[in-house]
Amino acid sequence: MVQFADRVNRVNPSAVREIFKLMADPEIISFGGGSPANESFEPDIIKEITAELLTKQPDLMLQYGTTEGWTPLRDAYIEHIAKPKGLAFDRGNIITTTGSTQGISLSIDAFVNEGDTVLVESPTFLATLMVFAKVNANVVAVDMDEDGMRTDDLAAKLEATGARLIYTIPTFQNPTGRTLSLERRKDVAKLAALHGAVVIEDDPYCDLRYSGEALPPIKSFDDADNVIMLNSFSKIVSPGLRVGTVAASAEIIPKLTVAKQCSDTHTAILPQAICAEYLNRGLLPGHLKSTAPMYKERLDTMLACIEKYLPAEAEYTRPDGGVFIWLTMPDGFDAQELLVTATQKYKVAFVPGAPFHADPADGKNTLRLNFSGATPDKIEEGMQRLSKAFAAQL
Amino acid sequence: MVQFADRVNRVNPSAVREIFKLMADPEIISFGGGSPANESFEPDIIKEITAELLTKQPDLMLQYGTTEGWTPLRDAYIEHIAKPKGLAFDRGNIITTTGSTQGISLSIDAFVNEGDTVLVESPTFLATLMVFAKVNANVVAVDMDEDGMRTDDLAAKLEATGARLIYTIPTFQNPTGRTLSLERRKDVAKLAALHGAVVIEDDPYCDLRYSGEALPPIKSFDDADNVIMLNSFSKIVSPGLRVGTVAASAEIIPKLTVAKQCSDTHTAILPQAICAEYLNRGLLPGHLKSTAPMYKERLDTMLACIEKYLPAEAEYTRPDGGVFIWLTMPDGFDAQELLVTATQKYKVAFVPGAPFHADPADGKNTLRLNFSGATPDKIEEGMQRLSKAFAAQL
Repeated sequence: MVQFADRVNRVNPSAVREIFKLMADPEIISFGGGSPANESFEPDIIKEITAELLTKQPDLMLQYGTTEGWTPLRDAYIEHIAKPKGLAFDRGNIITTTGSTQGISLSIDAFVNEGDTVLVESPTFLATLMVFAKVNANVVAVDMDEDGMRTDDLAAKLEATGARLIYTIPTFQNPTGRTLSLERRKDVAKLAALHGAVVIEDDPYCDLRYSGEALPPIKSFDDADNVIMLNSFSKIVSPGLRVGTVAASAEIIPKLTVAKQCSDTHTAILPQAICAEYLNRGLLPGHLKSTAPMYKERLDTMLACIEKYLPAEAEYTRPDGGVFIWLTMPDGFDAQELLVTATQKYKVAFVPGAPFHADPADGKNTLRLNFSGATPDKIEEGMQRLSKAFAAQL
Repeated sequence: MVQFADRVNRVNPSAVREIFKLMADPEIISFGGGSPANESFEPDIIKEITAELLTKQPDLMLQYGTTEGWTPLRDAYIEHIAKPKGLAFDRGNIITTTGSTQGISLSIDAFVNEGDTVLVESPTFLATLMVFAKVNANVVAVDMDEDGMRTDDLAAKLEATGARLIYTIPTFQNPTGRTLSLERRKDVAKLAALHGAVVIEDDPYCDLRYSGEALPPIKSFDDADNVIMLNSFSKIVSPGLRVGTVAASAEIIPKLTVAKQCSDTHTAILPQAICAEYLNRGLLPGHLKSTAPMYKERLDTMLACIEKYLPAEAEYTRPDGGVFIWLTMPDGFDAQELLVTATQKYKVAFVPGAPFHADPADGKNTLRLNFSGATPDKIEEGMQRLSKAFAAQL
C-alpha cells in the first residue's frame, strides 16, 4: 500500500468528475464543458500549415526546443495578439505554455507558498481552485456583481488578509460570463501595486465577443509590473493543441521558466508552430469575425430557452461573449441533485455551481451552462429536457 | 518588487544553463545535449500520418481530450511497447504525459512531501534533481558501479533513511550510460516492496540498444505494485512532440491524473495521435533496427576519439546503447573550468558532471558527453577540439 503526498490528497477530483463519467452516454446533450464549437475548427488550414512546417523545417519541428517556447510564436503573439490590445512586449516578457492551465499552475508555483492567502472571484474557475488546493493556499473569495469582481471588497480583503496573489478572469468569466468593468480593471492594477500583490489575469475568452466594445486588459494599467497575463489558443484556434501564452515582467518570466522546466521541459513544437503560422498568415481576425455570429446565435438561443423553459425564479447572466451563462436559483435549491436527475433521467448535463466556490458549501443553488459547444437545435432540445428535470425537482 | 515562492527560489537554473546560452554560437560543436539524431527523424511519415488524422478525425484532433490521455495511444503503448517487454497492462494502468519530464514531475508531486528523503543514483538526471529541489526533498545519493546502482548501498540507505521513493534510470543511464544488471533489477523491486518505497523507473533510452541483450524492466519484478515506469517517445520518434507514458498500478494512476489536471489538463492530442498511429502501423521495430547502426557508429567513433585524443588518465564508460558517455578525470580536475575554455576558445561543448550530483560539490572532475546528436565527422572534429581544451588546462 503506497502512501501519497499531502499535495495530491488535498485535491479532490470532486463529485462532478464522477458524474461526468456518465456523460460518455452519447444520448446526453451536454452543457457541461467549456469547449469551443467543433464547427469553429479549421482542420484543412491546420493540415496545410502542418504539412508546410514539416516540409520546410522538419528538424526544428521534431527536435527538442527551448523552455521559453517556440520563438516565432512568442513574436507572433506580441505582434498579432498583444499589440492590437495596445500592449507592447519584448520576447523576454513571453513564455508559451501547454495550455493556459499550465500558465495558472506555473504562476501559482512561482508565487504561492503553502498557507499563503490568495484572493479569487466568487465563484471562480474550478481547476484553479484545484491548483490552489494542491499548494495548500488559503483561498479567500471576493464578492462579484454584474461588473465582475467588486474592487471595494477586493481592497478590504487585501487589507485584511495581506494576500500575495489575486486570481481573476476579467472577461466573460468562467463560470459566470461576467466582465470586469473598465474602472475596476484600473482599480485591480492599482490595488495590486499598492499591496505588492501579484495578479494572475486569466483571459482566454476575451476575443470571443459577440456584442459591446472590447475592454483593455488589466495588464494595460500595470505600471508596477505585477500582472501576469494569460492568453490561450484553446478557444480561438483549438484546445486540443494545448497552447497558451504568459506575458509578464522580465523579472517574473525566468522564475516561470524554471517552474516550466520542472514541469515538462517545453511545450510540443508542432502545436506552437501551427499557432504561430496561423497568426502570421493573418487568419485570426477573420476567423473571430466569422465565428462570432455562430456563437451569438447559440448564446441568444440559450437565453431565449431559459426564458421560455426554465423556472421563472431562475436568475441568470446575459454575457456579451465567451461560452458560459450562470444561473442562480433561490436558496435551498440543490443543483447537484438536479444534475443527477438531469443526466440519468432526462439525458442533459451542466455543471453545478458549488465546486466553483472557495467554500464548496456555497453556491449549491447555482449552475453553469455552456452554450458554445452545442448547435441551436441541440440547445433547444437540451433546454427542454432540462426544464423537465427542473419540474421534477421543484 | 514581487516576492517569489520558496519553491522556485530553491531551484537553481545552474551555471550550466548560463553557459549553454553561449551555444547559440553556430560554430560550436555540442556534445552537451541529450538529443536523438536529426537523421533519425521521419518527417514524411509524420506528415502523412498527421494529414490522415486531420482528415479522418478533425474534431477529435482539435477538441479537448481527457487528462488520462488519447485512448488509442494508451492502447498502442500497451500492445506495442509494454507487451514486447513482457508486461501486461490495462488501460487503467496508463496515462500519457507531456514528455517524460512530466511523468517525473507528477510522480514526485504524488509521492514526495516537503522534507521527505528520496534516493537517487549518484550521479543522476539533473532535471530530476531540480524537481526534487522544487519540492524540498532530502536527496540522498546511492553509489553506482558499472552495473548501475549498487543495491547493497540502496538497502543500507533505505534502512538508514526510511526513504519513501527511489528514482532510477536503469538502462543507459543519464548521465553515465550505465545499465542496471538483471539481478539488481530484481533487488530494487524486492527492496522497494520490503520498505514500502515507490520506485520511479525512468527508462527513456531502453530501446536504443546497439549491442548486448535487452533486460526486463524493474516493473517486471514489481509484485508489490510499487513501481512507476516512465517511457518516452522523445528518443525513439521525436522529442519535439513531447509525448511520454506512465505505467503504474490502478491505485496510483488516479493520483497522477489529479496532479496532471492541475498541471496542463491534458497533453496535446495531435502529438499523441501521431505516436499512436506510428505504433499501430508497426513502424517502431524497423525504425529502431535501422537507426541502431547509425548510433553505434557515433558511439564507436566517440569511444575511439576518447582513446586517441583525450588524456590517458581519463576513465570512461562504454555503454551498449543510449546517448551518453561519462568521463571521470583524476580528483582536482575542474570540468566546469574546462567547459569555459572549451566553449569560448575551442568551440566545443559538453556538460560538466557536478550538477548531476545530489551534492553539487561532488563530481567536479566528471563530465558527460553526448554522442547521438553529432555525425561521426563532427564527433571527430569536436573531440580534437576538446583535446586542445584539455591540453590547455592540464
